[in-house]
Amino acid sequence: MESAVPATAAAAPLELPTRLLHGPGPSPVAPSVLEALAKPCIGHMDPEFMRVMNEVRSMLQTVFGTENEMTLACSGTGSAGAEMLMDNLVEPGDVCLVGVNGVFGGRLAEKARRAGGEVHTMDADWGQAFDQDAVVAKIEELEPAIACFVHAETSTGVHQPFDRLGEAMHKHGGLLLMDCVTSFAGLPLEVDAWGVDGAYSGTQKCLSCPPGLSPVTLSERAMHKLAGRKTPVHSWYLDLTLVGNYWSGSRAYHHTAPVNMNYALHEALRLVLEEGLEERFARHQATHEKLKAGLLERGFEYASDPDHSLPMLNLVKIPAGVADEAAVRKRLLTEHGLEIGGGLGALAGVCWRIGLMGHGARDESVDTILKALDAELG
Amino acid sequence: MESAVPATAAAAPLELPTRLLHGPGPSPVAPSVLEALAKPCIGHMDPEFMRVMNEVRSMLQTVFGTENEMTLACSGTGSAGAEMLMDNLVEPGDVCLVGVNGVFGGRLAEKARRAGGEVHTMDADWGQAFDQDAVVAKIEELEPAIACFVHAETSTGVHQPFDRLGEAMHKHGGLLLMDCVTSFAGLPLEVDAWGVDGAYSGTQKCLSCPPGLSPVTLSERAMHKLAGRKTPVHSWYLDLTLVGNYWSGSRAYHHTAPVNMNYALHEALRLVLEEGLEERFARHQATHEKLKAGLLERGFEYASDPDHSLPMLNLVKIPAGVADEAAVRKRLLTEHGLEIGGGLGALAGVCWRIGLMGHGARDESVDTILKALDAELG
Repeated sequence: MESAVPATAAAAPLELPTRLLHGPGPSPVAPSVLEALAKPCIGHMDPEFMRVMNEVRSMLQTVFGTENEMTLACSGTGSAGAEMLMDNLVEPGDVCLVGVNGVFGGRLAEKARRAGGEVHTMDADWGQAFDQDAVVAKIEELEPAIACFVHAETSTGVHQPFDRLGEAMHKHGGLLLMDCVTSFAGLPLEVDAWGVDGAYSGTQKCLSCPPGLSPVTLSERAMHKLAGRKTPVHSWYLDLTLVGNYWSGSRAYHHTAPVNMNYALHEALRLVLEEGLEERFARHQATHEKLKAGLLERGFEYASDPDHSLPMLNLVKIPAGVADEAAVRKRLLTEHGLEIGGGLGALAGVCWRIGLMGHGARDESVDTILKALDAELG
Repeated sequence: MESAVPATAAAAPLELPTRLLHGPGPSPVAPSVLEALAKPCIGHMDPEFMRVMNEVRSMLQTVFGTENEMTLACSGTGSAGAEMLMDNLVEPGDVCLVGVNGVFGGRLAEKARRAGGEVHTMDADWGQAFDQDAVVAKIEELEPAIACFVHAETSTGVHQPFDRLGEAMHKHGGLLLMDCVTSFAGLPLEVDAWGVDGAYSGTQKCLSCPPGLSPVTLSERAMHKLAGRKTPVHSWYLDLTLVGNYWSGSRAYHHTAPVNMNYALHEALRLVLEEGLEERFARHQATHEKLKAGLLERGFEYASDPDHSLPMLNLVKIPAGVADEAAVRKRLLTEHGLEIGGGLGALAGVCWRIGLMGHGARDESVDTILKALDAELG
């Protein structure tokens, strides 16, 4: 049969500009990670790929601060990881407490709702963290089956303390979930010590790997709840009983893992551990302080609570004199090759987000960012 | 806080064996696709990335044989694409007809069930295609809201004719879905001419791109049903109203697209169109015939219906003299660097699957496969 659809000519080979990625992610990718990404593909059931998966899991455990056996790279972006936790751990009718102080908390509430949860939100001004005393009081009042908070809100640059929440949830048998998309490999994570039962991240923030996978970990408590579910998990793709068997149990085929993306994740994790976690956290902090000093000197104001500001994501108010903020960001991109982030949700048009993540958290980056801002705003 | 979790040392840098991928996928990846994969990452909202997405969409349309505006690369593997269609197009209580003549039909039935469908399966022996007359009769009897069949069953090597099914479904207002994971870019696809309302594929078969994305297309009829849903789509990650806006509507941020994987898909599609679809199909057919002749000469028997055998996936019975088939496949892998596939599901231990897909569908590949089989079985 002749196709009725007109044939498209092949597009021209990809030509891409060079960008300095200092928005909310993706972040700059180290050359060796791109090299790993481009290694020849092998089979997703090949014993050599199983070895790669095992090493990825082991390195993920260290960065998460956990000994959880159920630690893996979900075959989707951070949003898929969030959905994997909600879909597997929320049963219809479960009371869920979700902290909403930015876009990503709001999305978690929506995902918990779609998973059938009876969602109660706890709200804070965007740019503010939740006080742990208030969260513990709310947990004691509601006794939710699931509580979920965002460790590092990418939309507001806020760092949420987590260390006292697990105990409060476990007293009544609930599970604590954590979004650590932006903090993973940039801030200390103590999944086990904090009593976090489920956490997920993304590869394109402080890990400095291209986007496409979501590191996920679940505690024994979480796996126990999953094993005792009364209703089937809605998603087949994200069903942890099936995915988990592929990653660590019987190795039964479930889906074809994104093989090359796992190579890149392997190399990105390797770079993190070679540098050392403490050293990496200190580098993020030092670069943040250098940027902050430069921005304050130029009259910028931070819009996030100074006691809870993230080092890797700087939320600043758009200077009063800027009439068309999108045009400024566009000029930064086209004239200086510099990507910074606009505000998201309620902060669109109000704030900018400047990221110093992973391979991009370097003194030279700060100099470049300040120079470009001077050129466009000065 | 000091972590209680012992620090893992960084793994050694990746060292991977060279494999000749002639199983059911992933297939051998062309060097220029690996080069594209490793180009520097840019932002998922960058105008230059939007251009890449537009070109990917346009090339996908040509390979699907469609003018559907809603054509995109789902940010997950083929199984995610299947779930995207089921989750968006099946409403709770919808009567669904699913053809099951292999593992992947069975998975589609399960996904339709999880999406709330009242699933009726139509069954055929594994290795046999469905007779279109029988399918049309079943459609007229059931008048299902959704019918879904597998165009190229990767578990059995069967090619399912599709050209008469759309008309039968549209008479009563139903939607026809097609799994073309293994046929995409290897066999003619006529989504528009056949009246297919939703189709999905994977990148790691005849496209010869690493696994990680799923080409998906939906007709106007399908989008109309989605717009009129009475119940929300269960998945947020795969919600086509949100994903579709990012790919073609308002360009609103939904999730961070796997940027580099889309580069690879762009280059893989470019190679397909540069070669020409007809030429590519002919190459797959010619290579299949060469392999088939060599296998028959050596006493192999095909296990799929000879009138409906796929060129890119050859299902053969394991020779009678082979006592430990897994050991033979392991030696092919470790001694010859050759991956072929074991049988899946009911065919495990009974059949082997030999793939000649995309960049791997070449005369040299046939020679290599036959030589390795001779060495291990001869």
